[in-house]
Amino acid sequence: MSNIERYADLAERIIDLSADFRLRDPEDYIKWYGNEHTNIEWLEKFVYGLPELNRDAILGSRYVSGVGCNATATNLAVWPLFNAGLVEPGSSVICEVKVGSSEGGNKSSDATHHPERARVMRSFAPTGHRHTSEILQAIHVSGSDSRVYLSATAVDNVRGVLATAHLFVKDGVEERDLYRAYRGAYRNEPFVRIVKERTGVYRYPEPKILAGSNYADVGFEKEQGSNRVVAISAIDNLMKGAAGTAVQCMNLMHGWDETTGLTFPGLHPV
Amino acid sequence: MSNIERYADLAERIIDLSADFRLRDPEDYIKWYGNEHTNIEWLEKFVYGLPELNRDAILGSRYVSGVGCNATATNLAVWPLFNAGLVEPGSSVICEVKVGSSEGGNKSSDATHHPERARVMRSFAPTGHRHTSEILQAIHVSGSDSRVYLSATAVDNVRGVLATAHLFVKDGVEERDLYRAYRGAYRNEPFVRIVKERTGVYRYPEPKILAGSNYADVGFEKEQGSNRVVAISAIDNLMKGAAGTAVQCMNLMHGWDETTGLTFPGLHPV
Amino acid sequence: MSNIERYADLAERIIDLSADFRLRDPEDYIKWYGNEHTNIEWLEKFVYGLPELNRDAILGSRYVSGVGCNATATNLAVWPLFNAGLVEPGSSVICEVKVGSSEGGNKSSDATHHPERARVMRSFAPTGHRHTSEILQAIHVSGSDSRVYLSATAVDNVRGVLATAHLFVKDGVEERDLYRAYRGAYRNEPFVRIVKERTGVYRYPEPKILAGSNYADVGFEKEQGSNRVVAISAIDNLMKGAAGTAVQCMNLMHGWDETTGLTFPGLHPV
Amino acid sequence: MSNIERYADLAERIIDLSADFRLRDPEDYIKWYGNEHTNIEWLEKFVYGLPELNRDAILGSRYVSGVGCNATATNLAVWPLFNAGLVEPGSSVICEVKVGSSEGGNKSSDATHHPERARVMRSFAPTGHRHTSEILQAIHVSGSDSRVYLSATAVDNVRGVLATAHLFVKDGVEERDLYRAYRGAYRNEPFVRIVKERTGVYRYPEPKILAGSNYADVGFEKEQGSNRVVAISAIDNLMKGAAGTAVQCMNLMHGWDETTGLTFPGLHPV
Repeated sequence: MSNIERYADLAERIIDLSADFRLRDPEDYIKWYGNEHTNIEWLEKFVYGLPELNRDAILGSRYVSGVGCNATATNLAVWPLFNAGLVEPGSSVICEVKVGSSEGGNKSSDATHHPERARVMRSFAPTGHRHTSEILQAIHVSGSDSRVYLSATAVDNVRGVLATAHLFVKDGVEERDLYRAYRGAYRNEPFVRIVKERTGVYRYPEPKILAGSNYADVGFEKEQGSNRVVAISAIDNLMKGAAGTAVQCMNLMHGWDETTGLTFPGLHPV
Repeated sequence: MSNIERYADLAERIIDLSADFRLRDPEDYIKWYGNEHTNIEWLEKFVYGLPELNRDAILGSRYVSGVGCNATATNLAVWPLFNAGLVEPGSSVICEVKVGSSEGGNKSSDATHHPERARVMRSFAPTGHRHTSEILQAIHVSGSDSRVYLSATAVDNVRGVLATAHLFVKDGVEERDLYRAYRGAYRNEPFVRIVKERTGVYRYPEPKILAGSNYADVGFEKEQGSNRVVAISAIDNLMKGAAGTAVQCMNLMHGWDETTGLTFPGLHPV
Repeated sequence: MSNIERYADLAERIIDLSADFRLRDPEDYIKWYGNEHTNIEWLEKFVYGLPELNRDAILGSRYVSGVGCNATATNLAVWPLFNAGLVEPGSSVICEVKVGSSEGGNKSSDATHHPERARVMRSFAPTGHRHTSEILQAIHVSGSDSRVYLSATAVDNVRGVLATAHLFVKDGVEERDLYRAYRGAYRNEPFVRIVKERTGVYRYPEPKILAGSNYADVGFEKEQGSNRVVAISAIDNLMKGAAGTAVQCMNLMHGWDETTGLTFPGLHPV
Repeated sequence: MSNIERYADLAERIIDLSADFRLRDPEDYIKWYGNEHTNIEWLEKFVYGLPELNRDAILGSRYVSGVGCNATATNLAVWPLFNAGLVEPGSSVICEVKVGSSEGGNKSSDATHHPERARVMRSFAPTGHRHTSEILQAIHVSGSDSRVYLSATAVDNVRGVLATAHLFVKDGVEERDLYRAYRGAYRNEPFVRIVKERTGVYRYPEPKILAGSNYADVGFEKEQGSNRVVAISAIDNLMKGAAGTAVQCMNLMHGWDETTGLTFPGLHPV
C-alpha cells in the first residue's frame, strides 16, 4: 500500500505540498524528476492547486496538489497573456526568478552557512529547473506551444520570489491590451493586485512589501519599439508560494470564505 | 569651448568615466539618452574602453571612454559566443542583471534610504536600460544582427553585478564548442576567469567572491534538449565595472603592465 | 495658544508620540533636551505611557505620553529587579541597545544611504542618549538611586531593538530570586514573555522573532561567581517601542480589551 | 609526546592560533575552559601574541600564542587607560562586543543556517565568555584590580567586531587626559588609529570600513557630568582579530618589516 493510499484512507481531503502530484502527464516525471511515477493512477485524481488558474476544479476536488513557488510567481505573471491570446505563437518565454534562502528548506548545509550564503547573487539553477514543467503545463492549457526557459538566482533575502518573465507579443498588441488581459484575469481575484506606477519607489511588484502576506503582485512593462513584454510578479514564497496557497485551496474545498486566515497584508518595512 | 575641449587642452590622455563617449553612432544618443550629442566630432576620437574587446585600439588611443557596469558584465558573458559565430542568426539575447546599491551613486534619496532599500528585489529598469546600447554596439562588431533585451533588478548588496544572459545557439553547437569559444576569447586575459564546476557551493560566477577585485568571472550552461545557453558573468561594479577597467585602460595607454594596481583577488567572505 | 492646548480642544483624549510629555520634571528637559519646556503646566497632566509600569494611571488618564523605544526595551529588562529590591544600592546600570534603521525615521540622509548604512556596527550615541532620562524616571519610582548609562549602536536591521543591561544585585541574590522578580512583574502582562532556554538557537530574547509584533521578550543571566546580572530585552521598535504601545494605551483608556489589534505574534523567519 | 612537542620538533617558531597557550596561569584554564591544561610547562614558553601590548616579548620569542578576536578588540580599547593609570581603582569594566558570523567558524549548523542567522541581534554569551580571561590578563599587567564583564551579541555581518567598553575614570580625568593616554599608547603603532570626529557619518570606529584590513580603530567618549568613559574599538576579526595579528607576529619574530603583507586599508563600501 503506497503512502498516498494510506493517507487517502485516513483523510477525506488531501492537499499535498510535495511535488508528487503537480503534473498530469506521467512522462513529465521522467523528464523533470528523473523517475517514473509510482502512483500514476493518482495523477488524474489530483487537481493543480493554484486557484487563479484552477478554481472550479479545486472547488470540486478532494485531492489538490501544492504548487511550486517559482512556478507560481511565473504563472501569475505570464498566464493572463497566454489566456488572452496575446503571445506571439512559437515565441519563447524566458523567466528569471530571484529567490530568498527560505526556499531551500530548514536544513543547514555548507551552502546555507551564513558566511557563505549572505550577500550572494548565486545562480543555482541556470537551466533545468523542475518548476519549468508546472509553467509549461499551465500555458499549454491555453493552447500555446511556447517553450519556457527558467533560471533561478539566490539573493540575500530570507523570504520572497521575484519573477521577471520576458515574452513576445503579437504585432499590434499595445499596453492597453495588456492591461485588459491582466484586469480580466485578476479583476475578481482576492489575492492578486496589479502594480504599475509611473513614479515613486515602488513602481513594480516587490517581495519586500509582501513579507508574511498571501498577496501576489503582478505588473508589466512593454518595451518601446519592440514586442517584448516584461511580466513581473512578486510573492512571499512561504505564503502564496506554498503554504498560503494551500490554505486558500483548503478554504475553497470546504466552501469557506476563500480568504479565511490569509488577510495579512504584509509587514513593512522589513 | 566645450568641457571635453578644455579637458583635452589640459591632459594628454583622457579616460572619461561618464557615458558621453561610449557610443560611436550619434543617433544612439538620441535613441538611448534622449538628447542630441553636443560634441559629435569627438565620438570617433574615443575608443570604447573595454580591453577584452578593444585592447589594440586602446593601446593606440589618447581618448578612451569608460564602460557601463551592466554592459560590461553582459558583454563579457555573451561576446565570445558572437565572436565565434555560435549564436543563431536572428535570435535575441535576453539579459537580466542583478545589481547592488553602489551602482546608484553616492547621493541619498528616498529610494536608497536604508529601511526602503534593504532586502529588496526591485525591478528598476525592466526595459529601456541605456547600457543596452553598449551591448548592441559590441555584438554588432561581430556582424550579428541580434536584438538585445536588458532588464535590471536591484538586490540587497552594496557591490556586485551578476549578469544572466539567455541566448540561442545554432543547431549542433555543443558544450565543447562553447568552452572553446570562451577559452579562445579569454585564454590570455589577465582578469577574466572561466568558472564552471559540477559540485560545490560556488559552481558559477558570483560577485560575492569578487568584492574589491578587478576580476570578471564568466561561466555558462547549455540546456539539455534545447539550444538555449545561459551565459553568466560576475563583476564588482566598482572595479571591473568602471574604475578598475579605467585603471586597466590607463595601464595600457601608458604601456605599463596591464595589471598594475589591480591584482587584489577579492575579499572573502564578505 | 500652544499646540497642545489646540489639540486638547479638539480631542477628548491624547496619546502624544513625541518626546514632549514623557518626563515629569521640567529640569529634565533642560538637562536632556537642551531647552526649557514651554508647557510646564501640562507635564503633570500627562501619564507615562508604558502599561507594564503605569497601567492604573493610564486607565484613569486623558493624556498619555508615548514612550521612547530604547527606553522601553531597557525599562522592561531592568525595572522588575529594582521593583523587587534586588539591585545593589548605589550600583550603576549600564545598558547597550542595538537598533535597526527604522529608528531613525523615514527621512533619507547621507547616514542612511544604503551603501553607507548597510552592514554597519555603528556607535551613534555612546553617551548622552536622551532616553536615559526615561529609564532614570522609571527606576527612581522604586526608590532606587542608581545611575543609568546608556549607549546605542546601529546594526544592519530595519526593525528591532535588543537591550543588554548590566546591573549588580545584592549579595545572596540567586537565579530563583530573579525569576521570581520577573514572574511577579509580568505574570499577568499580555505582551511580555520571559525567554530563557538552556539549549537551542533561540535561548535569549531576540528581535528577529518579533517582527511586526507587540510582544516584548525579556530574559536574564546571572554570572557565575559575581553579582552581575545581564538583563536582556527584545522588541520591535515600530510596535512595542512606540506605535504598538500607544495602541495598547488607547485600548486601556477606552476600557477596551487591552490586546485589541495587537495580537500578531511576529513574522518568522524574516 | 604531546602535539605541541611534536610541532616544536618540526618548527623553529610556532604561532599557535588555538586558545591553548594564551593564558599564563594554569588555574585560568580550569576556570574559563573547564579543563586542566595538559602542557602546563609550555605556558611560560609562550608569549601572548598582541604586538601592541607585548611587542618586545614577541620579538624575542620562538613561541607566540594567537589572540582571541573579542579580547583583542576590547584590549585595544581599554588597555591604554589602565596603562596610564586613569581608571578608578576597584571599578569594573563592562564590555559588549558585537560580532559577525565568521567568528563562529566555517562549520554549518542550525544556528548558522541563513534563514535563522540572517538579521539577528542574538545574545550568545551574555556571561562567561572565555575571552574575558585574556582581557583580565592584559589589564592586570598594569597592576589593576578591576573586574571585567564581557557580553557578546551576534549581528547580521560576516566580518567585524565592535567592542563598546564602559569604564570609570578617576575624578578629575578630562578628555585631554584620555587623548594623551591613547596617543601615548598608539603613536607609533602601525595598525592602530584613533578615530573620534565631531561630525560626519563615521565619527567613531566602525568595522564597516575595515573589511579585509589589519587596522584597528579605537575611539572614546567621556560622558558629560560623570566619570564614565565609553571606549570603542573596531576590527576585522579575520584579520586583526586573529590571522592578521598572527602575520604581524611572524613579521616581528623574523625581524621583517612588521607591516609586510598587511597594508590593505580595507574595502569600502561593503
